[in-house]
Amino acid sequence: MERIIAIFGPGLLGGSLALAVQQRIPGAKLRLWARRENAEAGIRSRGIQADFFTDAAAAAEGASLIILCTPVETMATLAEQITQGQLADDCLITDVGSVKGSVVRALHPILGSRFIGSHPMAGSEKTGIEVARADLFQNATCLLTPIGAENAELPRLKNFWQALGCRVLQMSPEEHDEKVARISHLPHMMAAVTTLAALRTDLSAVACVANGFRDTTRVAGGDPGLWTGIALENRPALTAQLRAAADTLTELLEILDKPDEEELRRFLAEAQSLRRTVPAAVS
Amino acid sequence: MERIIAIFGPGLLGGSLALAVQQRIPGAKLRLWARRENAEAGIRSRGIQADFFTDAAAAAEGASLIILCTPVETMATLAEQITQGQLADDCLITDVGSVKGSVVRALHPILGSRFIGSHPMAGSEKTGIEVARADLFQNATCLLTPIGAENAELPRLKNFWQALGCRVLQMSPEEHDEKVARISHLPHMMAAVTTLAALRTDLSAVACVANGFRDTTRVAGGDPGLWTGIALENRPALTAQLRAAADTLTELLEILDKPDEEELRRFLAEAQSLRRTVPAAVS
Repeated sequence: MERIIAIFGPGLLGGSLALAVQQRIPGAKLRLWARRENAEAGIRSRGIQADFFTDAAAAAEGASLIILCTPVETMATLAEQITQGQLADDCLITDVGSVKGSVVRALHPILGSRFIGSHPMAGSEKTGIEVARADLFQNATCLLTPIGAENAELPRLKNFWQALGCRVLQMSPEEHDEKVARISHLPHMMAAVTTLAALRTDLSAVACVANGFRDTTRVAGGDPGLWTGIALENRPALTAQLRAAADTLTELLEILDKPDEEELRRFLAEAQSLRRTVPAAVS
Repeated sequence: MERIIAIFGPGLLGGSLALAVQQRIPGAKLRLWARRENAEAGIRSRGIQADFFTDAAAAAEGASLIILCTPVETMATLAEQITQGQLADDCLITDVGSVKGSVVRALHPILGSRFIGSHPMAGSEKTGIEVARADLFQNATCLLTPIGAENAELPRLKNFWQALGCRVLQMSPEEHDEKVARISHLPHMMAAVTTLAALRTDLSAVACVANGFRDTTRVAGGDPGLWTGIALENRPALTAQLRAAADTLTELLEILDKPDEEELRRFLAEAQSLRRTVPAAVS
């Protein structure tokens, strides 16, 4: 059971974490850190009862669990600031970043084994504390990426995410980045590519849009700054996936050029059968 | 007001049309034609009160409105069979196919000006009368593609779709195929490409799937036979869209290869701003 939980970065994820902790771990004292003073109003307006900080070292001091919810490229600087204060002996630090290799490589030298990466696979194309919700993590998969020897604090981190309703999986940072490139970063970029190809040269086509287009391109509405950071941090794995997609698109164009009806049916049937392995969302 | 409505092909669309007509146009007599006798059981099990036919000419005889809901590549043969019987003087014939250029070119010589193409933009990745529902067309956009001179029967066809809850737009068959390639056929193929690229070489990644992947690839679960037909019937427009997508993907890969952070942000911001022009679904 955590004594003091300090959340850094009150956006969609940090705000949802605060709401979820308040609802499901009522014994824990809650702290929220933001870069700017004026973030406090948004936090209060969502009914979050937390001590508010803009001083990172003060927010971290004595906390039993610290969760970094800022963009991945800002985390190393924040970690340096946190270590300026007096960290509790049992202080466990994690993050919610969508990339783990570069984050772990950057934070481990600063924070040591008290840091274990987390990636709760929850979010939205919308951003900001206005859209935060207490049930964001309910039934989400949370990927934990400990490194090196058995980490004694891993069960504590698992318990925390499970208390918020997550299903927890464990893998190496490298395996995480490869798998997440496949099933999160690739689809995000493909949604952007599809949106651009469809609408760039004829915006009037939007009048005919139905749910197929809405769903296929939904995540292209996500924050460009956030996704630029993610794409650059996970560039090698993402690029490999995008090249695989480009090859698959070429394969489809060659089938259509012939055209080969049987091959096209096989191509679409293979996609359908792979898509059928995806478990339905639990709500 | 239609006297007798004959629906050909009791699948998701035909079955949903029958349920919707029954609910919203209770004065009309309903007929359903299927290729096989054993389709009748499915129709009855969904509570559809219709006269059932396997003889196309008999099903069409005396009907005021005939709606073809079979795969696009079968419609010409069906149209030939329909004209063997005695069509009513006021008989209006339409279809619900996803492609209009090839359908209109095939059916107009057979049926003349009594034929006007329709494309209700409603459906699902699921197929069959089991998933048919009376409200499938509620708030959907229906594209009508009359050709040649002013068609006196066009207002009747508009009234029909509006009675089922559709918003009606009118355009030429060629404009239809180009726009629908952009916002329906392209996203479908991109969902298949994304699914194949992500899962073909590592099915275990499916354990990490979240809603971003689910939505981006949902339509890849659609029927391969149906979509093979659609892709081949609309091959020129679809191929042009897929080439645009391949070029856009190359553009993204070049940005990532440099890597150019500012260009990547611009690329994603352009996609976001185009995606924001898409109206939300009305439910």
